[in-house]
Amino acid sequence: MALENSSAPATAYAQPEIDVPALTAVLDGEYAGIRDLVRGNLTTYSSILDEADELGIDAYRERVREVVVKMAATGQTGMGFPVEYGGGGDVGASIAAFETLAFGDLSVLVKVGVQFGLFGGAILHLGTGRHHEAYLPGLITGELMGSFAMTETGHGSNVQALGTVATYDSATGEFVITTPDDDARKDYIGNAARHAELAVVFAQLEVDGRSQGVHAFVVPLRTGGRTAPGIRIEDDGRKMGLNGVDNGRIWFDGVRVPREALLNRFADVTPEGRYESAIDDPNRRFFTMLGTLVQGRVSVAGAGTSVAKVALTVATKYAARRRQFGAGQGSEEQVLLDYGLHQRRLLPLIARTYALHAAQDVVRTQLHEVFSGLSGIEGDARARRRLEARAAGMKALSTWHATRVVQECREACGGAGYLAVNRFAALKGDSDVFTTFEGDNHVLLQLVAKGLLTDHASEFEGLDQLGMVRYVTGLAVETVIERTSAHKLLERVRDLLPGGDDWDREAGLLDPEYQLAMFRFREEHLLAGLARRIKRGIDQERAAGAVFSQVQDHVIALARSHVERLVAEAFVDQVRALPEGGGKAALGLLCDLFALSAIEADRAWFMEHGRLTVQRSKAISREVNDLCRKVRPLAVDLVDAWGVPSAVLRAPDLVG
Amino acid sequence: MALENSSAPATAYAQPEIDVPALTAVLDGEYAGIRDLVRGNLTTYSSILDEADELGIDAYRERVREVVVKMAATGQTGMGFPVEYGGGGDVGASIAAFETLAFGDLSVLVKVGVQFGLFGGAILHLGTGRHHEAYLPGLITGELMGSFAMTETGHGSNVQALGTVATYDSATGEFVITTPDDDARKDYIGNAARHAELAVVFAQLEVDGRSQGVHAFVVPLRTGGRTAPGIRIEDDGRKMGLNGVDNGRIWFDGVRVPREALLNRFADVTPEGRYESAIDDPNRRFFTMLGTLVQGRVSVAGAGTSVAKVALTVATKYAARRRQFGAGQGSEEQVLLDYGLHQRRLLPLIARTYALHAAQDVVRTQLHEVFSGLSGIEGDARARRRLEARAAGMKALSTWHATRVVQECREACGGAGYLAVNRFAALKGDSDVFTTFEGDNHVLLQLVAKGLLTDHASEFEGLDQLGMVRYVTGLAVETVIERTSAHKLLERVRDLLPGGDDWDREAGLLDPEYQLAMFRFREEHLLAGLARRIKRGIDQERAAGAVFSQVQDHVIALARSHVERLVAEAFVDQVRALPEGGGKAALGLLCDLFALSAIEADRAWFMEHGRLTVQRSKAISREVNDLCRKVRPLAVDLVDAWGVPSAVLRAPDLVG
Repeated sequence: MALENSSAPATAYAQPEIDVPALTAVLDGEYAGIRDLVRGNLTTYSSILDEADELGIDAYRERVREVVVKMAATGQTGMGFPVEYGGGGDVGASIAAFETLAFGDLSVLVKVGVQFGLFGGAILHLGTGRHHEAYLPGLITGELMGSFAMTETGHGSNVQALGTVATYDSATGEFVITTPDDDARKDYIGNAARHAELAVVFAQLEVDGRSQGVHAFVVPLRTGGRTAPGIRIEDDGRKMGLNGVDNGRIWFDGVRVPREALLNRFADVTPEGRYESAIDDPNRRFFTMLGTLVQGRVSVAGAGTSVAKVALTVATKYAARRRQFGAGQGSEEQVLLDYGLHQRRLLPLIARTYALHAAQDVVRTQLHEVFSGLSGIEGDARARRRLEARAAGMKALSTWHATRVVQECREACGGAGYLAVNRFAALKGDSDVFTTFEGDNHVLLQLVAKGLLTDHASEFEGLDQLGMVRYVTGLAVETVIERTSAHKLLERVRDLLPGGDDWDREAGLLDPEYQLAMFRFREEHLLAGLARRIKRGIDQERAAGAVFSQVQDHVIALARSHVERLVAEAFVDQVRALPEGGGKAALGLLCDLFALSAIEADRAWFMEHGRLTVQRSKAISREVNDLCRKVRPLAVDLVDAWGVPSAVLRAPDLVG
Repeated sequence: MALENSSAPATAYAQPEIDVPALTAVLDGEYAGIRDLVRGNLTTYSSILDEADELGIDAYRERVREVVVKMAATGQTGMGFPVEYGGGGDVGASIAAFETLAFGDLSVLVKVGVQFGLFGGAILHLGTGRHHEAYLPGLITGELMGSFAMTETGHGSNVQALGTVATYDSATGEFVITTPDDDARKDYIGNAARHAELAVVFAQLEVDGRSQGVHAFVVPLRTGGRTAPGIRIEDDGRKMGLNGVDNGRIWFDGVRVPREALLNRFADVTPEGRYESAIDDPNRRFFTMLGTLVQGRVSVAGAGTSVAKVALTVATKYAARRRQFGAGQGSEEQVLLDYGLHQRRLLPLIARTYALHAAQDVVRTQLHEVFSGLSGIEGDARARRRLEARAAGMKALSTWHATRVVQECREACGGAGYLAVNRFAALKGDSDVFTTFEGDNHVLLQLVAKGLLTDHASEFEGLDQLGMVRYVTGLAVETVIERTSAHKLLERVRDLLPGGDDWDREAGLLDPEYQLAMFRFREEHLLAGLARRIKRGIDQERAAGAVFSQVQDHVIALARSHVERLVAEAFVDQVRALPEGGGKAALGLLCDLFALSAIEADRAWFMEHGRLTVQRSKAISREVNDLCRKVRPLAVDLVDAWGVPSAVLRAPDLVG
């Protein structure tokens, strides 16, 4: 395809130049200060990357704890907590700090996530004053380590069905916590095997013989280093990665905690044993509590993008200096990045990473707004649900992107990429579980799709199929079908694009409005189609489970399309807002490369649905090749602008 | 799509039943005996899978060596060597043994590959009687460990440009071997860091001031455990995986070896210093020597497929018993494998693994025929080149498949899949480098495409671009364009498919002739298109390097299509040859699932090139869904039939 004429305009193309520090400032945005603090800390403690290989697992875990505590002392990990307890009082900054921390050793990152995000977040958001006063000052410094004990061996995704039970004993004013069987043991719990003194334990609350659903309790796991009575802990042992984090399993055998151990922000039990909650609906109550998870998902989404940045920084720098093969015998060998194939392998991934960065800015800002002043969690329910859907979708796309990027970059660095002294071994093993933890990606995408089907009218709850079908068979599906007609889309693009009904044939490929219209058309078409399929299944009186199972691939396709549209919009908006200059021009190329390579990857769908002719499809592939050639001279500057500290690249064979 | 009517025929569909041992016998084929010997050995030494996690790197390496030597004593690793030196005299059996060994610890596998395949293979195929007598008996038992020192830090793929030099000194009758700079140090060399006493060293031979190209020399690395004078060895250290193999770097500083150290099957130096070879052309000589590598590529191809089998066995068994979510609150949760999405994730991968198994049978048989009696390497050059192309292509597709399967299966097993006690951590880290070693996959596919462009008329050489262009601009390209016209394809399908010019619209989707015609059409169209593009570039007098760089993605697409066509043909042939019964019916479903999901994955291309209408493309997706539902009840039997010993599944949390 490359030999055909490019579809670029005939006007002279001026290769943009990038001012790297200026572009870094754009990318760092309002959080440049906290990001630079973290970059400094990463450089100070960069020896942890070597220690991860050299130390035994016990010593490595201790070292990770030590680094976490030292970083906590600089303020970087406590940004999300209220100032009165020693925190920074800035939720957005806490996410930005976490994103930046993901450039370094990922055991440190995940231990920070467990301690300050999950454990600390649960105390902060589910607890009340008594819990805040008792625990926040200690946990913010890292002196008081804790676990977030939700997942069980038998229940990772469907946490509403957890098996652990907490029964209220009104005689003593205590909860009695019990693990009924091995399926209900807590599993993969960070900090549990070694360091946690406390755990926030999620269990089915039983009061007066009646189940009130899942609630959270503060339970001491260890005192003076010894496991508390009635508690059994087992080490999860070595993992594919993240071996600096001490994951473990916990069983509870009639463990008694005082009534005040219930994190009682949304529900409480009176001393006499009366259950009280301001939220009547048990489902709504449960998913309001789960709102604490949204911060974790936004964090992991950002971390995934950072992992991709590290891998691409190493692989791009390597490709810009490594030579292999030449034009002929005796001639100098050619730099890898000058090969068309190598450009095709790396440059669209750089573009997508920039796009995800822009989209991460949006979701972080939404989180900050919803959670600032602590009002959000009870505030605008609709805004919260939209945030939760966006966070779930971004987490899935960003972490799959990371897995794909690390793999492609390792292969692009050949045998040297396989040596542990270079960073891919750690990056790959450590980041692999990102696609699973904080919500399995496939499950998260189904939640995203459900939000779209119900127009966010329902609680952002689990995958209860009957519940879903109930909503869909009601008003929502008609609304969805009406709202997503091709006619409506056309109305919206008419003012933006030439060509009227033929907008998809007339518009220039490099017109962002064309690219966005393509993403929007795909999403709306998938949404309408899915709603119709579900409705048809229900009209035929088929079992909800069977209907749901058979449309599952549509569900996933819809959710992916939705999130990809959000990402594209975020990137287009970011580029438009930049002042004219080399940076804007360079990001404009990347934005085109992201959008067109995404459309190219799904061109079969666009052809099948009448929005791409064969000629135009081929033109898009040519344009992607052309964009790769234009981005190639900028590649090293573009990865440098991410500002991954050189001390943590740790790829001596690859980047010198 | 799943709610539409299936395109399956209206006649009653009878679900086939599988006799698992009978299907295993079909898959094991003529090598059932050696495969069962290896299965027994894997079970005997299955503790190595735990030891890999528990032992330090030094102890693990020693243990791997020990297991390799003990397995050698059972005869499994020496099958490829002549009987008179203690081998089994059966090349095909040696590959089958290696394939089966890949069910177990992959450090053991790779150490076997280094010792018996690379080092032993070089002595056998490049050496002559004096080398065979001196080394084969010791190396076959594993007592004499050796290295295959080809790759250098600066040259992994372009080995014709190696930097190590061997200068003949006629005064002493010795070769003097020198590493001129760090780029020329030998790197990633298995057995080098610890166990090798000898190495086969590839170096530029200089005789009387004249360079004769790369040749191989037997060089002592250690005597009595001490590094030989003039040699420096450095440990490559920890790797992403395969840490039971002691990879290292080697520098030579004027190391002297006697004239007889030259492996002189294809070239020799007389005592007086005259260079002699029966093969005049230096290129042909070099690539004849490299013929030893073909066995390694066939072996790694088979190992990749075996890795996929292990991962799919674990993930399928887990998916058939793990429950998560239900049709509604209170109802029993649903088995993962009953979800349409989960079927879509796993079952096409099972089908592709079966297809690759069938194709591996073909390439193993070809290898056996070419190499049996040791005549092959000098025998029919054309057959050898076709074998080399097929081996290169199979190695690339099979190892990428393994990487993809391991990743998908790990994610499908959630958090449990991340624990080292289950097998994915080791499988993933250990098999990752398969895509790189024994030839980088992208480089191998370029070699495959070159063979197609030149109709295997040229030597199977490197990616010398001028050489390639020379062939292509000559007779070959015209022949290719003529041979691959749509007209010719049509002639060939006319007798097999109804519909004449409209064969691609009329034939049934489940007709294997239709499926094969689609694969063939794609390959021939890509080949003709690529030939035309190169010719056009040359006609425009563009630099060969630029032309080549810009068509590289076509080159890769062509090679993939070619190999996928070979795989499809092998699978169709295998199924056709089976006796009627449940096994044939089950493999027939898998064959359809493989072919249609491969066409579906590339349906954009088929639509762009007029061979798939939108309606038919959608029908293929529906058919794939339908096939998944039919294969689902057979899934556990299908993975059991691969015969992965239960002792090496090592996934207690996943398969019980």
